[in-house]
Amino acid sequence: MRLESYVQGRWIAPGGDWTGIRSAVTGAVVAEVGSGGLSQGGPGMAEVLDHARRVGGPALRRLTFHQRAEMLKRLAAFLNERRDGLYALSHQTGATRTDNLIDIDGGIGTLFVYASKGRRELPNATFLIDGAVEPLSRGGSFVGRHVMTARTGCAVHINAFNFPCWGLLEKLAPAILAGVPVVTKPATITAYVAHALVRLIAESGILPDGALQCVVGPTGDLFDHLTGQDVVSFTGSAETAQLLQRHPVIAREAVHFVAERDSLNAAILGPDAGPGTPEFDLYVKEVAKEMTVKAGQKCTAIRRALAPRAHVPAVIEALRQRLASVRIGDPAREDVRMGPVVGLAQRRDVLARVDALKAEAELVFGDPARLAVEGADPETGAFLPPMLLHCADPLRARQVHGLEAFGPVCTVMGYDGLDEAAVLANRGEGSLVASLYTHDPAAAADLVFGVGAYHGRLVVIDRDCAKEQTGHGSPMPHMMHGGPGRAGGGEELGGVRALSHYMQRTALQGSPAMLSRITESWIKGAPEAIRPEHPFRCHFEDLEIGRSFHSAERVITLADIEHFARFTGDTFYAHMSEEATKGHPFFPGRVAHGYLLLSFAAGLFVDPDPGPVLANYGLDSLRFLKPIQPGEAIRVRLTAKEKSPRNAQYGEVRWDVEIRTASGETAATYELLTMNAMRGA
Amino acid sequence: MRLESYVQGRWIAPGGDWTGIRSAVTGAVVAEVGSGGLSQGGPGMAEVLDHARRVGGPALRRLTFHQRAEMLKRLAAFLNERRDGLYALSHQTGATRTDNLIDIDGGIGTLFVYASKGRRELPNATFLIDGAVEPLSRGGSFVGRHVMTARTGCAVHINAFNFPCWGLLEKLAPAILAGVPVVTKPATITAYVAHALVRLIAESGILPDGALQCVVGPTGDLFDHLTGQDVVSFTGSAETAQLLQRHPVIAREAVHFVAERDSLNAAILGPDAGPGTPEFDLYVKEVAKEMTVKAGQKCTAIRRALAPRAHVPAVIEALRQRLASVRIGDPAREDVRMGPVVGLAQRRDVLARVDALKAEAELVFGDPARLAVEGADPETGAFLPPMLLHCADPLRARQVHGLEAFGPVCTVMGYDGLDEAAVLANRGEGSLVASLYTHDPAAAADLVFGVGAYHGRLVVIDRDCAKEQTGHGSPMPHMMHGGPGRAGGGEELGGVRALSHYMQRTALQGSPAMLSRITESWIKGAPEAIRPEHPFRCHFEDLEIGRSFHSAERVITLADIEHFARFTGDTFYAHMSEEATKGHPFFPGRVAHGYLLLSFAAGLFVDPDPGPVLANYGLDSLRFLKPIQPGEAIRVRLTAKEKSPRNAQYGEVRWDVEIRTASGETAATYELLTMNAMRGA
Repeated sequence: MRLESYVQGRWIAPGGDWTGIRSAVTGAVVAEVGSGGLSQGGPGMAEVLDHARRVGGPALRRLTFHQRAEMLKRLAAFLNERRDGLYALSHQTGATRTDNLIDIDGGIGTLFVYASKGRRELPNATFLIDGAVEPLSRGGSFVGRHVMTARTGCAVHINAFNFPCWGLLEKLAPAILAGVPVVTKPATITAYVAHALVRLIAESGILPDGALQCVVGPTGDLFDHLTGQDVVSFTGSAETAQLLQRHPVIAREAVHFVAERDSLNAAILGPDAGPGTPEFDLYVKEVAKEMTVKAGQKCTAIRRALAPRAHVPAVIEALRQRLASVRIGDPAREDVRMGPVVGLAQRRDVLARVDALKAEAELVFGDPARLAVEGADPETGAFLPPMLLHCADPLRARQVHGLEAFGPVCTVMGYDGLDEAAVLANRGEGSLVASLYTHDPAAAADLVFGVGAYHGRLVVIDRDCAKEQTGHGSPMPHMMHGGPGRAGGGEELGGVRALSHYMQRTALQGSPAMLSRITESWIKGAPEAIRPEHPFRCHFEDLEIGRSFHSAERVITLADIEHFARFTGDTFYAHMSEEATKGHPFFPGRVAHGYLLLSFAAGLFVDPDPGPVLANYGLDSLRFLKPIQPGEAIRVRLTAKEKSPRNAQYGEVRWDVEIRTASGETAATYELLTMNAMRGA
Repeated sequence: MRLESYVQGRWIAPGGDWTGIRSAVTGAVVAEVGSGGLSQGGPGMAEVLDHARRVGGPALRRLTFHQRAEMLKRLAAFLNERRDGLYALSHQTGATRTDNLIDIDGGIGTLFVYASKGRRELPNATFLIDGAVEPLSRGGSFVGRHVMTARTGCAVHINAFNFPCWGLLEKLAPAILAGVPVVTKPATITAYVAHALVRLIAESGILPDGALQCVVGPTGDLFDHLTGQDVVSFTGSAETAQLLQRHPVIAREAVHFVAERDSLNAAILGPDAGPGTPEFDLYVKEVAKEMTVKAGQKCTAIRRALAPRAHVPAVIEALRQRLASVRIGDPAREDVRMGPVVGLAQRRDVLARVDALKAEAELVFGDPARLAVEGADPETGAFLPPMLLHCADPLRARQVHGLEAFGPVCTVMGYDGLDEAAVLANRGEGSLVASLYTHDPAAAADLVFGVGAYHGRLVVIDRDCAKEQTGHGSPMPHMMHGGPGRAGGGEELGGVRALSHYMQRTALQGSPAMLSRITESWIKGAPEAIRPEHPFRCHFEDLEIGRSFHSAERVITLADIEHFARFTGDTFYAHMSEEATKGHPFFPGRVAHGYLLLSFAAGLFVDPDPGPVLANYGLDSLRFLKPIQPGEAIRVRLTAKEKSPRNAQYGEVRWDVEIRTASGETAATYELLTMNAMRGA
């Protein structure tokens, strides 16, 4: 299989010589890549970026978040039916069936989650409103609000070899949802899997032209053409990350640069979790799992197993037993738990790093010289045993906290007291994740706040979540992935938070009228449209933002309050007794129930006959600002604030509601949510 | 005045030779700085950072956001009473009275705004919860939530010469509020003003030891000692920014780097805003103001004045008239509108850049050779006239969009159509701000979405906000300051958003019980504490998170619904007529009013007698999930979710409320807000 690049909507053979990519399992050539980057005479890297910016970007930005989410959902479903071909290829990288579930199913699952979050958590619009209206003037004629719009550049995604599918898709999903086209660059050694994935995506025809391009092999002068509208998102080694981040164009153009790189992640056994506790068993199981899944080639793998000093011997013994039962061999076999690392060079590198670690730690399990391999040749395949080290003096050690052996390698180390556990965990100088094994919330809280600033993710694993917990090593699309310092300082995933890396936040300032129109969100102080017809008679499409209704007045009598109290059972003293409210910090005397105000307000603004308003489905941000005393009158203003179509039948309308006293003081404010029928439905 | 550095809580004289800083107005030496950085034998840069991390950081992190906000407020009040000394010094930098209002009062105002926002928008806690609970398992035993904690490093603030006070304070406020100590490095040429400000701050004794240090003069090897927990926030030229950003330690340690640098900001006259309109006059006034305030030495100044091509002659004529009346001279004089630029080197630089711009644009106002200066010597002071250029072919020009003359310089350019206006504005390749002068919301929306991705801030100025608008050039603490691309890609200010640069976001995963305890926010699925005493009998301090109340049941009868309808006036058909609900997409027949449910729920959970619960002051996130039909029963669960003390008398309690049917289905959920008395109050 000769790998091509997918550029400007077509497949382009590379220039230069062909080089073979070898199977991690057999050492046989499974694919070939060109050494010369894109072919001579064809489009160059500048044209690739240009195609993304001129064709892909505008096409994506014309769609709303909901439309992009729908596209991701269709793409996920399309890929979901075509996983088998990817599985087969992926075994050659050393991936077992379980590894494939993480890489392939996990990648597709990430698309599904972003599709669902895009639909539920984002508006059906092309921009986002960020935060509340900021009052910037006493008189209220000048206000501010933030919006977020898609960057007009290109997202350059540079992926690591270990997850050719997940890595591509977890970066793709938020970029596409944000409206930014992607140029993806798979790591060469597993590029044939990513290549097959891109072939499927291209075949699907679901993404618009230019939304995804894929460069296999060297990226040439791509970085020279980046601008401040582009984003680089890199996953891989700290060395490469630094090289790229220090490219002069990154600083010159202030290119947004996101990195996810080395990480010496810790698993911390709590002081309460001695041998015999469920948490001890969960810890041992998780450490062993993280050493062997993907043959330990995971940025999130556990590299440092911290345990109370007294429990270290028991931990080592339990891990030895567990690791001894791990069957190593051909990853396509069902009975094999761990495949080879990705290639012979990687094996050499891991062994060299284990040797370096031995200066500070003792190898207590795993002998590379005596390795039983099932169904494959241990010479031509890149097999390694799980290797467990023990560092007796971790406070003085440096390498065990800083040198990442990217394979099935972990170092056990003891700690004395929670403070020392935090110090040791933080010696990683910034990690993607740490996991805590404790059933003691106080210990967990101490650790979380002791190590929080050094970690992108913290997982507390105990008996209560044992069955459903998703594991130390699995980034979930809902939660942030990335970590500070050594881990690169990046933030990927994290639900819709991830979109912020592909969007520009802009502060808008102007009159309420102007900002209401620009953001399509009515702001108090902007004009109201008052017409004879009640706004509840308007179908979704016909309702204009700013359409208002001003109700008649209603006096709230003492009889109303007493009647409401008896009827509902809410006989709180502030409604019932003038005497009891004496000295009350907020109430000047007996006052009406807040819910009475709400109920009377609804009575004042409701339009009773069947019509386009199908239901009041909720209410947000209700604040009672001024208590109403018996004999006072209220009236209501109701103004259409925002609209978001939900489907062909109806859409959501958010109303700004204000209950005022007869003298115009604001008694309460809230946002009312209704579902309004479409005209045609 | 010989300037010292404020390090480890004391003033330290520099090493090396003394160099004079000259007055912008008279050319006389007004202060001296040392060339050798911190003195030999004293603390080095590593010790400065160490002091911040070991002393300042822990002291700040022990305080809650409210306590830090209170500290900022006291500091602002302290400085506010001591402005006069700063004004006098600041005149020597070339600043007029108006310029001082921006720099000194503006800086103090920023402290006040952060103090107020910290109090109102942040919890009285040491960490922030970020976003909603994420369900990560079907059974609900494993969930996720994000928290933000203060970085444990140091904020290194490198400031520009133009706003020695505002620049220091606007960076200081969010860092201190976040809980991160600051090392500030003023620009040397105006360091005597910053130095005086730091003296006042130190004298006040309000900030804890190590929270603020100030390095005057060279920073030596400071960058060599940065780690991934530190933050660098730089304001200044793009050249210096790139030099710093490319320092190997920044990439190696993934130091968070925020930059605010060159920006060719545009003012865009709308197509509707021809001569004679209020917007035309506002535009002319704003362009002239931005050229002359601070003698044009503002990162946010208008460098490019875009106008419909037909209006260009009128714009130039109006600007000429306006600029001709600007009185230039000794900035301490009341009648002077514009002072000198900061020094003779700066004047030479501005003139050289204007010469370069002349290759593409014609100088239409301002002759440096013929300059009337009031009360100062035009030879020894760094005086310049406002210089207006006109570029006839801005689509082909490059320098006018990329070369920033950091003085009283602006280029007028014509455009044809809104699309071209956006293209030209975006030729700045990323700007801090653009302002639009139009009374046409459609034109404004077109421009906002046409240029949004290239701008950190957009101000729409029209007749409606003319009197209260805060101006093109004034970053407000509430709104983001910073811009993409050439402007550096940074984000400063923006209200509490700015804190995110000083905090680490961490994804927490675990059981609801564990996450509730860690985050001090009850999550559904976590244990509830049910005790005989009603939770409304608990004073604020005694109420435990998770304390629950389960109400009795109440059947909602048809009579209840009809009575409620008559009583409140809410006779919406879905409550009144079985017939009318036929075919309704959500309702199976007649249903109870949502407000009836809320009111009955209150009746079911309220504790009527006077007690610690003073008032229900609001309600959030109410959603009606299942309609209730006549004859169905409801019951209520009420659980203490979060607490935040407000003052010595009372604190806020947020309750998680669920209305359930008799069969346990959720009919409605919401968060109830009460104010609870303190035990001692």
